[in-house]
Amino acid sequence: MQFLSSRLKAFLRRTKRGSAQLYLDYAAATPVLPLVATLMDTIQRESYGNPGAIHAAGVTAARIVSDARLTLARLLGVRPVEVFFTASGTEANNLAILGYITHLQVTGQAYTDMQIVSTRLEHPSVLAVLKALERRGVTIVYVAVDDAGKIDVSSLREALTDQTMLVTFAYANSEVGIVQDVKRITRAVRLYNTKHTTTIRVHLDAAQAPLWLPCQVHQLGVDMMSLDAGKCNGPKGVGVLIKRAGVTLDSVMLGGGQETGLRAGTENVAAIAGCALAIAHAQDSYPERSAVIYSSVRALVAALRTHVPEAVFNGPDFVDDVTKLERLPNNVHISLPGFDTEYAVIYLDKHGIAASTRSACSGAGEGASATVAEMTGDSARAAATIRFSLDPAITPKEIVRVATVLRQFIDLQLTV
Amino acid sequence: MQFLSSRLKAFLRRTKRGSAQLYLDYAAATPVLPLVATLMDTIQRESYGNPGAIHAAGVTAARIVSDARLTLARLLGVRPVEVFFTASGTEANNLAILGYITHLQVTGQAYTDMQIVSTRLEHPSVLAVLKALERRGVTIVYVAVDDAGKIDVSSLREALTDQTMLVTFAYANSEVGIVQDVKRITRAVRLYNTKHTTTIRVHLDAAQAPLWLPCQVHQLGVDMMSLDAGKCNGPKGVGVLIKRAGVTLDSVMLGGGQETGLRAGTENVAAIAGCALAIAHAQDSYPERSAVIYSSVRALVAALRTHVPEAVFNGPDFVDDVTKLERLPNNVHISLPGFDTEYAVIYLDKHGIAASTRSACSGAGEGASATVAEMTGDSARAAATIRFSLDPAITPKEIVRVATVLRQFIDLQLTV
Repeated sequence: MQFLSSRLKAFLRRTKRGSAQLYLDYAAATPVLPLVATLMDTIQRESYGNPGAIHAAGVTAARIVSDARLTLARLLGVRPVEVFFTASGTEANNLAILGYITHLQVTGQAYTDMQIVSTRLEHPSVLAVLKALERRGVTIVYVAVDDAGKIDVSSLREALTDQTMLVTFAYANSEVGIVQDVKRITRAVRLYNTKHTTTIRVHLDAAQAPLWLPCQVHQLGVDMMSLDAGKCNGPKGVGVLIKRAGVTLDSVMLGGGQETGLRAGTENVAAIAGCALAIAHAQDSYPERSAVIYSSVRALVAALRTHVPEAVFNGPDFVDDVTKLERLPNNVHISLPGFDTEYAVIYLDKHGIAASTRSACSGAGEGASATVAEMTGDSARAAATIRFSLDPAITPKEIVRVATVLRQFIDLQLTV
Repeated sequence: MQFLSSRLKAFLRRTKRGSAQLYLDYAAATPVLPLVATLMDTIQRESYGNPGAIHAAGVTAARIVSDARLTLARLLGVRPVEVFFTASGTEANNLAILGYITHLQVTGQAYTDMQIVSTRLEHPSVLAVLKALERRGVTIVYVAVDDAGKIDVSSLREALTDQTMLVTFAYANSEVGIVQDVKRITRAVRLYNTKHTTTIRVHLDAAQAPLWLPCQVHQLGVDMMSLDAGKCNGPKGVGVLIKRAGVTLDSVMLGGGQETGLRAGTENVAAIAGCALAIAHAQDSYPERSAVIYSSVRALVAALRTHVPEAVFNGPDFVDDVTKLERLPNNVHISLPGFDTEYAVIYLDKHGIAASTRSACSGAGEGASATVAEMTGDSARAAATIRFSLDPAITPKEIVRVATVLRQFIDLQLTV
């Protein structure tokens, strides 16, 4: 055990080192709420039964899972049987899209007779699934977005055909923070369904939403919705798929009959409880949280305009009224055409500021932002992006420091 | 937050209630080591970066993951690039079998030209994948086992053909605890491969192994091996697939490029660290742990023979020398032909003893044990099974109580 203790100490030293930063990468990962961490730790230490077992320890574990399911169901306006726990937002997206199309194929619909409507702004876990389905013969239609990244709803309407099975898009874009008008889109699909007596389903990737936007499923009008606890002050390694009762999916994980047969594997009891608590907390106070962070975001935008006139702002406008905002209230996304923004992010990091060039899931050093390229058609803007996704704890002094450090970086580049 | 606080309290009350039991369901789920829980809680609270991010918080998180990978690689005798983290043993089994066969199919091998050799004793996460592949046209050959559940190696040898792509079986059966002679089987496959210049791969489901059996991959001679932290005093929701460098798999989870492209989804940093620490601890001391628990198991067998002569013992013999044992040293598996053993388990539970009828993943109340039916061909024995999988903390007094409570149950049934 000597070896393990020294490893443990090394782990702890390292974790402390990373936490002194000004953290502006909230879209990639969020700190876990202390209340959530305590709940998980307690369950982890004291309730280790397998929810599939019929004895007291198993029943206790099963109750924790069903309580979490009930909490989310009430919160999101669905039935408990419509809540499915997965191991990530990625898995929820895979299950929704692959599971639905595979089910249709298994029940007799040829891949080549199916079409999916989406955009080129989606998260890698959606785009990769769409590409895989395309290889099997499914037609994928990527509808146009305007230069702020908003889906053109009339293009979307025109893309719907009698072969369309699914419309899938993100509530809020993980990179530029564009918030789509979900209700308008679901209304358009519903109208089409009624007019053509068909059943096109809508899947919403809401991984970035719970901290900032209302997530009541029946109000959004979607058939499926993906969530990720790790993006809203909950633990990593647990996601949620909401699936309305009428939608049938094929499982993508085979084995025991957990999650009513849809997702095999022993339920991750502590993480599931932590997930429900985090999402409940996020939704409980999203309007206040949004208002607070948006004043910081506007201050950062002003500071950047003052100190870094080279910055080109991407995405919807920073309007005065936060309730009219068409972007995530904690997101500032800029391009610095002609500059190496990956190096800028490293320079910021060296000065204690954690930002990012793109989505962490897109990997590092792999070239331009496909999202900005799609929105603007401007390769210089797409090649040089920085995303600031703010932590609600940020102070006015820290905001100015972000802008001045970025100024320093640019000045250094200009004098080289 | 009033609502959440009351929910939190309710959770905590419930978790305490389940923990007073004598826990004999170690094969279904294990308590988390305090050291592992502390490590995870610390990481959860202090290191929340996304390992895909390039700033300090991300780099710290990535280091924790790579440390965990390195720990497991050293321990299991493989290279770090051969260690892949998943969200469960189930996912590891799905990825190994589905991923390998799908890859072969995508690269030009027809499903109908492929054959897999396995047994009917496998875990649901293996059997369900085999059935899904069978529906696509793959031939599955289930080789015979003897009446103790051991694979008949000459039958296995005869089952190998030029269409065989994969041999998959469990190191230790999760229900009856049968330990297979892995080296003899991998040697037979290697001989076949050399003689026929072919490459049949061997996948080992070792989910039940780390606490009790040596798991060095190069000594076992397998190409892939699945592990599950939740079965060896680690957290639920994290598994491992070891995949030797020469084996190519198709991903079953699509999205970001995590786990070198094999498994998309933000790395579950805290759980991955906890998983590595738990497996390291399990393997560190398995011979001593096995010797200690086996003396308790033999005492339980003796007590059952004295108090419950109706019990028929399933699986390999309880030989004197633990190093010659062909079963998990903490497993006692009996049949009570003619009795309702699901009710027996409920009766035991009422008296503070947590046991099970079968694997928790097989679900409750779904009839006979397929494993015992396959081994013995005796439907009365298969219909009435009880599994005791002992906690190393069990005392001699508690062992006698198990036997006497079971005696009471039988007496009550006989007088009805």
